[in-house]
Amino acid sequence: MGETYLERINGLQDIKKLSIPELKVLSQELREYILAVVSQNGGHLSSNLGVIELTVALEYVFQTDVDRLVWDVGHQSYAHKILTGRREAFKTLRQMGGLSGFPKREESPCDTYDTGHSSTSIAAALGFAKARDLKKEDHKVIAVIGDGSMTGGPAFEALNLAGALNTDVLVILNDNRMSIAPNIGGISNYLNRLRSSAAYAASKQAVRRALSQVPVLGKGMIKIIETLKESLRYIMVNGVVFSELGFQYYGPVDGHDLHSLIEMLEHVKEIKGPVMLHVVTEKGRGYKPAVENAAAFHGIAPFDLETGKTNGSDPSQAPTYTSVFSKTLLELAGLHPEIIGITAAMSDGTGLEEFRRQYPDRFFDVGIAEQTAVSFGTALALSGYRPVVAVYSSFLQRGYDQLLQDAALQKAPLILALDRSGLVGEDGPTHHGVFDLSYLSHIPHMTVMVPRDEAMLSQMLELAFQYKAGPVALRYPRGKGKGREIVSGHQLAWGSAQLLRPGYQALIVAAGPLVYEGLAAARRLEAEGYSVGVLDPCFLKPLDKETIWSAAKWCNLVVTAEENVAVGGLGWAVTRLLSESGYHGRVNCLCIPDEFITQGSQAELRELLHLNAEGLAAAVREGLN
Amino acid sequence: MGETYLERINGLQDIKKLSIPELKVLSQELREYILAVVSQNGGHLSSNLGVIELTVALEYVFQTDVDRLVWDVGHQSYAHKILTGRREAFKTLRQMGGLSGFPKREESPCDTYDTGHSSTSIAAALGFAKARDLKKEDHKVIAVIGDGSMTGGPAFEALNLAGALNTDVLVILNDNRMSIAPNIGGISNYLNRLRSSAAYAASKQAVRRALSQVPVLGKGMIKIIETLKESLRYIMVNGVVFSELGFQYYGPVDGHDLHSLIEMLEHVKEIKGPVMLHVVTEKGRGYKPAVENAAAFHGIAPFDLETGKTNGSDPSQAPTYTSVFSKTLLELAGLHPEIIGITAAMSDGTGLEEFRRQYPDRFFDVGIAEQTAVSFGTALALSGYRPVVAVYSSFLQRGYDQLLQDAALQKAPLILALDRSGLVGEDGPTHHGVFDLSYLSHIPHMTVMVPRDEAMLSQMLELAFQYKAGPVALRYPRGKGKGREIVSGHQLAWGSAQLLRPGYQALIVAAGPLVYEGLAAARRLEAEGYSVGVLDPCFLKPLDKETIWSAAKWCNLVVTAEENVAVGGLGWAVTRLLSESGYHGRVNCLCIPDEFITQGSQAELRELLHLNAEGLAAAVREGLN
Repeated sequence: MGETYLERINGLQDIKKLSIPELKVLSQELREYILAVVSQNGGHLSSNLGVIELTVALEYVFQTDVDRLVWDVGHQSYAHKILTGRREAFKTLRQMGGLSGFPKREESPCDTYDTGHSSTSIAAALGFAKARDLKKEDHKVIAVIGDGSMTGGPAFEALNLAGALNTDVLVILNDNRMSIAPNIGGISNYLNRLRSSAAYAASKQAVRRALSQVPVLGKGMIKIIETLKESLRYIMVNGVVFSELGFQYYGPVDGHDLHSLIEMLEHVKEIKGPVMLHVVTEKGRGYKPAVENAAAFHGIAPFDLETGKTNGSDPSQAPTYTSVFSKTLLELAGLHPEIIGITAAMSDGTGLEEFRRQYPDRFFDVGIAEQTAVSFGTALALSGYRPVVAVYSSFLQRGYDQLLQDAALQKAPLILALDRSGLVGEDGPTHHGVFDLSYLSHIPHMTVMVPRDEAMLSQMLELAFQYKAGPVALRYPRGKGKGREIVSGHQLAWGSAQLLRPGYQALIVAAGPLVYEGLAAARRLEAEGYSVGVLDPCFLKPLDKETIWSAAKWCNLVVTAEENVAVGGLGWAVTRLLSESGYHGRVNCLCIPDEFITQGSQAELRELLHLNAEGLAAAVREGLN
Repeated sequence: MGETYLERINGLQDIKKLSIPELKVLSQELREYILAVVSQNGGHLSSNLGVIELTVALEYVFQTDVDRLVWDVGHQSYAHKILTGRREAFKTLRQMGGLSGFPKREESPCDTYDTGHSSTSIAAALGFAKARDLKKEDHKVIAVIGDGSMTGGPAFEALNLAGALNTDVLVILNDNRMSIAPNIGGISNYLNRLRSSAAYAASKQAVRRALSQVPVLGKGMIKIIETLKESLRYIMVNGVVFSELGFQYYGPVDGHDLHSLIEMLEHVKEIKGPVMLHVVTEKGRGYKPAVENAAAFHGIAPFDLETGKTNGSDPSQAPTYTSVFSKTLLELAGLHPEIIGITAAMSDGTGLEEFRRQYPDRFFDVGIAEQTAVSFGTALALSGYRPVVAVYSSFLQRGYDQLLQDAALQKAPLILALDRSGLVGEDGPTHHGVFDLSYLSHIPHMTVMVPRDEAMLSQMLELAFQYKAGPVALRYPRGKGKGREIVSGHQLAWGSAQLLRPGYQALIVAAGPLVYEGLAAARRLEAEGYSVGVLDPCFLKPLDKETIWSAAKWCNLVVTAEENVAVGGLGWAVTRLLSESGYHGRVNCLCIPDEFITQGSQAELRELLHLNAEGLAAAVREGLN
């Protein structure tokens, strides 16, 4: 018929009709399909290629519309989506209005828990398991968590909780030796030892044989051997760390051997209590460029399948904010030996990779552990060093308490380089960095800088290092800006706003690159006969009252613009400042609405939310009429 | 001379002059002194009595102005403070202007890291250790962490990091089998096994003897025994979980045996790499009421030394907010079997203890793991249950990311009962709950309720259970209110403010119990001839625009009052709302200033910050003139 196995999978039950040899073919088809779509749409590749056989086995053994399957982080759920009735929809992956790149309960009853950030799956699985117990239902609950996510504190909290709850839950440890970067730390070393336990398994057999010889020994020895026997539970039971925490440990299993996987899943499915199954997979499996460079193919833009190269689409010669941060930091690090780089398992994405290469002694990857990044960095800062925690805006939400209690309370001169602030695009609601102005600027002693372009990012980073009275956060967006060589003619000064364009009817106060949209809007409005000023606050905190007030007081209208939610953001800050100054004009705020913002390209989302020159011009026109 | 040993300890060096028998007497004197001061001032008792010998040993062996000693949470640092030059100042413990109940770098060079929240000490110690390595200094770095704090994710993140850093750090696991409540979970069970390892130690000796007999066996057995020998590192090395993570484990040691403690500390002091010393202590040691009820004496108000009873000082018959929450929840739980109680190791403080007793199957203590409380609760909420996470406001800061990414994103009907919101008093800056309105109300789909008294707390809790469209937070203060039987004549309705008193010159908009201060101010001002209205928004989110606007629009002045910082709080929200409505009057905001607030009684702090009737009256007078 020419129909592929994949084409026969229209719903949950279809996979169960296939034989293991057929499932192997299906896995290969899945691999090709995922490669085809991700090379078109961009997305998470390496991790998805790594879990294809595991997903096939899970869907084959479990009933994922009844059993609760929680994917940690969730970027590895592509095969799951395709196999649970979303094969055709998968072509719209990560597009506006299309399928999410993460589990979404609204998409399917097979998606049980929306994720996006790391290390929460075991806690969620335990919640589902206890709900099942209370309802006296009997479905299975499974969490699939990578070894990278296991370095995050919440994963450990939940492992600990599992030891107390006495409930049936299966944790599948998807061990590919990577988070996004290669994993580090004690748990990683431990897993290495477990993985290389083939020799060890042989020694277990030898021990078993030895024990079977006990009766032939003299009576005096028996007592001793009995003692040994008791003690040997430590070696008979593999995975002792997990065993001690209350799990029954199984594995490691080859995560690309469907036969073993299915056999093992069928086995552990029936075991009571918390079970951990250790599965070893290869990131990027089956696609050479991804195997060879798993980090680059972790999350990737559309690329050429043959060469593995991303399409050099953007004609602009401007560098990304990330690369400008990276370059500036390197320049400063060469001059200042007290500068230290800290990442939470994302040295590539945050631009710290080159710093790591050049200054390995001054670079620290703490694992997927933003909280620890902040505490560890605070102690270094209090010891005279100048650590920079480079982190995505939405991931630093994990470190919020430590920002307050460790860094700010002690006025530690810690620098926070927040990449991916504002709308990030296709990764969607869990990744948009649209809360940072709010969660940072209410923290005492915190400074919040918002560069409008890469040139200013460089200047601000330099300025941040000159400041020693407390933590400083710089928040800048994903992607490219205006080019690093822009010269504004304005001298950046601590806590000073910059009036870039005077105007007497309306004033646009915009944060970050939106300043350029404001300038474009003002020029457009000038042609229509309006006099519109544009002001860049540069600093959200401290906010430059004087400059803002003196520019605003003659205008009937102030329009603010920011890629941040309203509450506690720039618009509210300006409104409050003007109210205190006795302003009687209108203040209109363009910002992220009070909801979670969907996926789509950055440009699409900005248009949707009117966060561009047109939107600003319209807001000014409307406000003045 | 009649001088006690304690009176001879005026600085760091003095303790080193004493012999071990003298140190034992000193420990007893410390115990009596701490009891005397805490029974007067209130404070953390059980944990401090438990670590006296450990502290004496640490100060004796280490040089804590050069070596870096980090106390996890820090409430157990009393003996440390007394021994490091603060003996007399200790009499001002927890008083306004006095000694903090937590480590404070500004108090002494011996306090290296300000703490207050749990599980950060190992990360901080690693930061100090790496700073030392980079500077090529050679002092020691020590973290002292309780077994309770070990259930918190950040502690594990840092254990994992230690395995990667290859630096000298000593982690002292202060194992008293408790956080505040008795500990639960896998790690706790594991520590239990380590503790009861006396028999186990004996078996180790037997094994050693057995191995010494190897040569007499036949050649064929030797290979097998060699294999055993290799494998036996698992039993020869105690504390295998910590060993596998990269620590050298020592202990358990009796934490009240000064001789063993000092000997062991002298030993581990010289060991390279990460070392964990397991010390077993007894909470409340030496004071019978505290031993028998360690939880009640964890943090305690002034009490009678003889009887152990707190002074029934407050003549008001009003119940505490905590007890009203507790009682209401029990009433509702009797009617609704889907209600579930979740605590992060604080069932007593949050008022869940009785719920635990009555509904053990529906109660979960997740350990000191607020993040897991939120994720676990979210999964239960998505499964049809109605979990209530009862938690202190400042501790929920740890769960901020999970509130966004787990609860709110999925619109999970999770209820957050935030006790200790606003100024908490003597525990000071790390415990004031003055950021919650800001960090909660910018979260989409979140509802934020602020009851003005205990009667309203009850009503709001009932109302929260009727709502199923997303998470709901109730924030209420520490202490007593107005009594549960207040009848306001107003029907509480979802998202509706209540105008409690009309006025045409000024309007006071106050959150929580400050409403009563507003009413008192308005009465006072009426006597002076002013017409002042008072409005209770009841809901910070959604904020009742219509009612607020219709009450405010005739007034020249609106004064807001809240025990929360300005940025993103009630004052800003009202300012923004009125600005949108075209208000031209003044808006003055009384709130927590943009700094960390010191310790002191709640009344003292409220007076200091003018957050009372007088302050409100003054603000109205000033605003109108």
